[in-house]
Amino acid sequence: MSKKILITGCAGFIGSNLVDFFLSKKYSIIGIDNLSTGKIKFLNDALKSKKFIFKNEDLLKYSRIKNFFSNVELVIHLSANADVRLGPEHPKKDLEQNLIVTSNILEAMRENNVKKIVFSSTGSVYGEATEFPTPENTFFPIQTSFYGSSKLGAEALISAYSHAFGIKCWIFRFVSVLGPRYTHGHIVDFYKKILKKNKVINVLGDGNQKKSYIHISDCADAIYKSLKYFKDSINIINIGHNQFITVKQSLNRIKLLMKSEKKEIYQKKIRGWVGDNPYIHLDIKKLKRTGWKPKIKILEAVEDTVNFIKNNEWILK
Amino acid sequence: MSKKILITGCAGFIGSNLVDFFLSKKYSIIGIDNLSTGKIKFLNDALKSKKFIFKNEDLLKYSRIKNFFSNVELVIHLSANADVRLGPEHPKKDLEQNLIVTSNILEAMRENNVKKIVFSSTGSVYGEATEFPTPENTFFPIQTSFYGSSKLGAEALISAYSHAFGIKCWIFRFVSVLGPRYTHGHIVDFYKKILKKNKVINVLGDGNQKKSYIHISDCADAIYKSLKYFKDSINIINIGHNQFITVKQSLNRIKLLMKSEKKEIYQKKIRGWVGDNPYIHLDIKKLKRTGWKPKIKILEAVEDTVNFIKNNEWILK
Repeated sequence: MSKKILITGCAGFIGSNLVDFFLSKKYSIIGIDNLSTGKIKFLNDALKSKKFIFKNEDLLKYSRIKNFFSNVELVIHLSANADVRLGPEHPKKDLEQNLIVTSNILEAMRENNVKKIVFSSTGSVYGEATEFPTPENTFFPIQTSFYGSSKLGAEALISAYSHAFGIKCWIFRFVSVLGPRYTHGHIVDFYKKILKKNKVINVLGDGNQKKSYIHISDCADAIYKSLKYFKDSINIINIGHNQFITVKQSLNRIKLLMKSEKKEIYQKKIRGWVGDNPYIHLDIKKLKRTGWKPKIKILEAVEDTVNFIKNNEWILK
Repeated sequence: MSKKILITGCAGFIGSNLVDFFLSKKYSIIGIDNLSTGKIKFLNDALKSKKFIFKNEDLLKYSRIKNFFSNVELVIHLSANADVRLGPEHPKKDLEQNLIVTSNILEAMRENNVKKIVFSSTGSVYGEATEFPTPENTFFPIQTSFYGSSKLGAEALISAYSHAFGIKCWIFRFVSVLGPRYTHGHIVDFYKKILKKNKVINVLGDGNQKKSYIHISDCADAIYKSLKYFKDSINIINIGHNQFITVKQSLNRIKLLMKSEKKEIYQKKIRGWVGDNPYIHLDIKKLKRTGWKPKIKILEAVEDTVNFIKNNEWILK
């Protein structure tokens, strides 16, 4: 049996961590990334391995990528427009990067007879959920963000391919992931605001938004265990934490670690931006059936992330 | 107040009926259709009206269509790849015709400050529902067809635009619509099979698929009443019938009307094609809040459709 895995977005935060993780499990990997937001540095270790091939390509260019899928057993499709807050500024970007790219991946799989795909979806597909923690089969949600909406469209497309062409899929709905190689999101934002000359830290929203997070090592482990455990044709699985924290708690921990005494200024609105979900907490009962549970507490994951940034301030540029 | 409505897919079955309906209500209408499946004949009456302008254009060509949205009050977006069964033969078609076109419409609305949209979605977004009749907020479904999956993606995109840009939307999840100008679907298929020389009628599936239908006049009335009644930013509304019938019942009625005594041959599988839903019955409680109820029984709608085809066999070509 071939054990070759193709990973899209392989130079990103989650991608490069999964490259290292699956290399450690002796898989051969072909990684694709156009380095628009991914960092080649994150692949420093992987590039030393004979089992890793890197392709600097744009997934929108179908004819240039389709042959990479030959003899691949499993595709891990992570590439996406990951900026969840700027949807309204360029609504076409989520459509192209999240939906059309996914369509290209699925067509390439079909042409090359690849029968397994892992997809990184998001808890944002639940919109503003009405059930907490939110299980995979909660009430049919209404979308509130371009990011969530394009991810839901991609989930749906993958499911249709699975149903029609006997492709097995594992669709993971992630909460925000933290840990080494984290390059964007609220921790980077607060880190930058603390470094700046301003005397105050302006927070998006009232700081009471409740969010759940997961450490990248727990996330990789969850994907690996799910691949072994769930054998349906279409598998949709939340990856989250039994805990959640508020934006305020997170910021306080970051300030402590950075020895900052700046004053926080909160807004008087519950959403930090258009499409922000004031409460994200996913039900992880299904995932736990695999024997998985999160090993790292959320505030420890915040700490690990801040320490990574301290040692790698180049990512802020 | 401007009362100009823009209707995409205006030469199609539902589109041309809505053109006539809204002309009768004294609206001005600009209709767009590339006549790939729409029929110019269906617009014969409308074209006589000074209040109707027809544009033969492809909605994928953004620069050619965007100016049509100037001074429009409401967009009724019906244009779609309506062949629900051939998804697996050309998976990109649903993506282009249903999703990228919808994205173009929304961008054109944004550029021209149009603040209202009606969208024709489908009960297929419920995949294989687990709750009957199926309400709008049933359990988060898994997609089984390319058609449903691209419509769900379009719904999601429209909701994200609504949330971000203050656009009001009415997303209607239709069961199959019947009546005058019906050009494709099971009645046309059976009609053709009865006309052919074969001695038998081959049915897709075991004939026990339960499906609900609505007559186009009830459908138009439902849209009109919903536009007046539902005032939320995002309105998602089923349009269906309190009744359902089986494929077998429908075929028997068609045979009777066509005086056919051909034998029916059923398959031993519950789904007629990949992505077929063996049971479609939508909950219409929400719609009924508007005072609407279906006036035409399903078998009467079947009869009306067969009579239309009898008088318009040119549509079979």
